[in-house]
Amino acid sequence: MSASGLPFDDFRELLRNLPGPNSAALVAARDRDAQLTKPPGALGRLEEIAFWLAAWTGKPPAVNRPLVAIFAGNHGVTRQGVTPFPSSVTAQMVENFAAGGAAINQICVSHDLGLKVFDLALDYPTGDITEEAALSERDCAATMAFGMEAVAGGTDLLCIGEMGIGNTTIAAAINLALYGGTAEDWVGPGTGSEGEVLKRKVAAVEKAVALHRNHLSDPLELMRRLGGREIAAMAGAILAARMQQVPVILDGYVATAAGAILKAANPSALDHCLIGHVSAEPGHMRAIEKLGKTPLLALGMRLGEGTGAALAAGIVKAAAACHGGMATFAQAGVSNKN
Amino acid sequence: MSASGLPFDDFRELLRNLPGPNSAALVAARDRDAQLTKPPGALGRLEEIAFWLAAWTGKPPAVNRPLVAIFAGNHGVTRQGVTPFPSSVTAQMVENFAAGGAAINQICVSHDLGLKVFDLALDYPTGDITEEAALSERDCAATMAFGMEAVAGGTDLLCIGEMGIGNTTIAAAINLALYGGTAEDWVGPGTGSEGEVLKRKVAAVEKAVALHRNHLSDPLELMRRLGGREIAAMAGAILAARMQQVPVILDGYVATAAGAILKAANPSALDHCLIGHVSAEPGHMRAIEKLGKTPLLALGMRLGEGTGAALAAGIVKAAAACHGGMATFAQAGVSNKN
Repeated sequence: MSASGLPFDDFRELLRNLPGPNSAALVAARDRDAQLTKPPGALGRLEEIAFWLAAWTGKPPAVNRPLVAIFAGNHGVTRQGVTPFPSSVTAQMVENFAAGGAAINQICVSHDLGLKVFDLALDYPTGDITEEAALSERDCAATMAFGMEAVAGGTDLLCIGEMGIGNTTIAAAINLALYGGTAEDWVGPGTGSEGEVLKRKVAAVEKAVALHRNHLSDPLELMRRLGGREIAAMAGAILAARMQQVPVILDGYVATAAGAILKAANPSALDHCLIGHVSAEPGHMRAIEKLGKTPLLALGMRLGEGTGAALAAGIVKAAAACHGGMATFAQAGVSNKN
Repeated sequence: MSASGLPFDDFRELLRNLPGPNSAALVAARDRDAQLTKPPGALGRLEEIAFWLAAWTGKPPAVNRPLVAIFAGNHGVTRQGVTPFPSSVTAQMVENFAAGGAAINQICVSHDLGLKVFDLALDYPTGDITEEAALSERDCAATMAFGMEAVAGGTDLLCIGEMGIGNTTIAAAINLALYGGTAEDWVGPGTGSEGEVLKRKVAAVEKAVALHRNHLSDPLELMRRLGGREIAAMAGAILAARMQQVPVILDGYVATAAGAILKAANPSALDHCLIGHVSAEPGHMRAIEKLGKTPLLALGMRLGEGTGAALAAGIVKAAAACHGGMATFAQAGVSNKN
C-alpha cells in the first residue's frame, strides 16, 4: 500500500465501504465452541473474543503473528505549558523502545508479541492547536496512509499504542469536540500534569476547540485540526486492519480518541476493535462508554506505549488457544448433560 | 515434606506462626521502580504486583517457574441432586487434563505455565454434608498435608484451582457458615444448576449449615465438616506456599472459599495471595470483598480448573518482566522531571 498524497476523499470512500464481519466463520466458531469440554458460556469473555476473532479474520480463531504498533508524534501545543516533560522525551523514548528498555518491550517479550515503532517526523511538531490546525489535509492524509503500513508486514492481531509528549491534551480536545461537555470532563493528568500545568492544559483544550468550532462537524477535518500525527497514523492503521481482516486492540486514552474519530465517520468503524484496558486517565472510561465498548482489563495503568493493549493481547491469545486446542466432549469421552 | 497423619494441632501451630513479608526486598523493589523509564505509578497495578512478589519471595520480582495446581475431589452431597452432572465427570475431566484437552491446558501453553493435577481419592467421595461431616479430622489433615506437596517441586508462583462436581455447593456452605446471610446469597448456578436443581442446592446448603451449626466456630473444624478434599488440599497448598515464600494466585469461587477458611483462622493468612479473577458465580464478588481483596481480572468466566488464576499469571509475569527488564532513566538517557 503506497502512502504519499492520498487526500481525505479516498479515506471518506473507505469509511463508506467498510467490510462487515464474516458470518460463516462466526457460525463455525460458535458450532465448535458448543462441543468443547466446558459448560456453555463458562469461558465468559474468552468465548466472545474467539467469536470476534473468527468474525473479523474470516477464519477459525487463531493468533499466530500478533503485533504491537507504537506511533510516536510531537505536538506544537506543548508550547502552552500543558505537560511537565519536554518534547524531547518522545524521541528519547523511541530510542528506549529501539534499545528494548521500555515497559512495552518487556510485555512484548513476556507475551511473545512483535513490536514496530513508527517515528512520525518527531523533529517537526504539529501546529499548536490553540492557534492553528495541527496538520494540513495533505499531511494528515499522508500520515494516515503511513499508518496503514502497520499491517503491511502481515499480522493477525494488531495492538495500537502511542508515545507523544502532549498527546493527552490532543485526545482531550478531540473528545470535547466529538462529545461535548466541559474541558474538565476530558482533561486529566496524562503523563504528570498537575496544579498550574493542569490548568493550562484545560485552558488549551478549551481554546483549541473554540478556535476550530466551525470546522468540527466533519470527523476527518476535526482530526487534522485538533489531532496529531500519531492520531492520524493510528486512524489509518485501524482502517487498514479492517480492510485486511486484522482484528485490533486499542490501547489507552489517546488511541481511543483516534478510534473515536473513525466511529464518528461510520458507527461500525470500530466493530473489529477491542479496547484493551481502561486507563487511570479520568476521561477514559467515559470515552470508552461513548464507543459502546467494555475494556478487557482495568489495572490502573496510564503509560501508553501500547502497554494495556499488549497485556490484553495475552488474554486474546489465550482465548484463541482455548478455542483451537480444547478437546470436544466426543474426543475426551466427557459426559455432557446437553 | 511428609504428608501422612498430621492432626489439626500442627496446622493450628502453623497458622499462629505465619511468616510476614520481607521488608528489605520490598524496599529494594520500590527503589528500583522509582528509577524505571516511566512516570511514577504509570504501570498501576503492575507495580503493586511487582512489590507483592518482592515482599513474599524475599527477592527481586521474578517469575521463572510458575505452576498451576488443580485439586480434584468428589462430594457426597451430589446425592442431594444439586448438580446436573454426574460425579464421574470429575474423573473424566482429570483424564482430559492429562490428555491436554481442557481449557487450562491451552492457557498453560499460551502463558508458559507448568501444570500439576492432584487427584484426591475420586472413587471415595466425601460424606454428604447434609447428613454428616465431609471428612474425619485425620483424613482432612492428611489431605491438607498432601496439598502442601504442590510447592515441593519448586515454583515461584503458584496458581491454585480445582475440579469437582458438587464443589460450588460446598463452597456456598463454607461461605454461609463463615459470613452468614442466607443460602441464596452464596448459592449460584456453578457448573449449570438451575430450576429445581438450584432449589435443591439451596436446600442442601441450608440443611448442612444447620446440621453442623454448633461446630463451626473453629475454622479447621468447619473445613472438615462442610468442606471437601480439594478444599483441604488447597488450604494446605496456600499454607505451604506461605512457608516456602511462594506467592499464590487463587482462582474462582471454590478456591476462594478454601482461602477464606485460613483467613478466618488468621487474618493475615492470605496476604501472600492474589485473587486472579472474579467469576460469574454470583456470590464470588461478595466473597472476595469479605477477604478485602480486588480481583485482577473480571472476564465473566465460571469454569474453575484454575483458568482465571492462570490468565492472571500472564499479568503477573508481565509485571515481573517490566520491573526486571526496564531501563532506568540514567541507563536510557531519558529526561525525568522528578
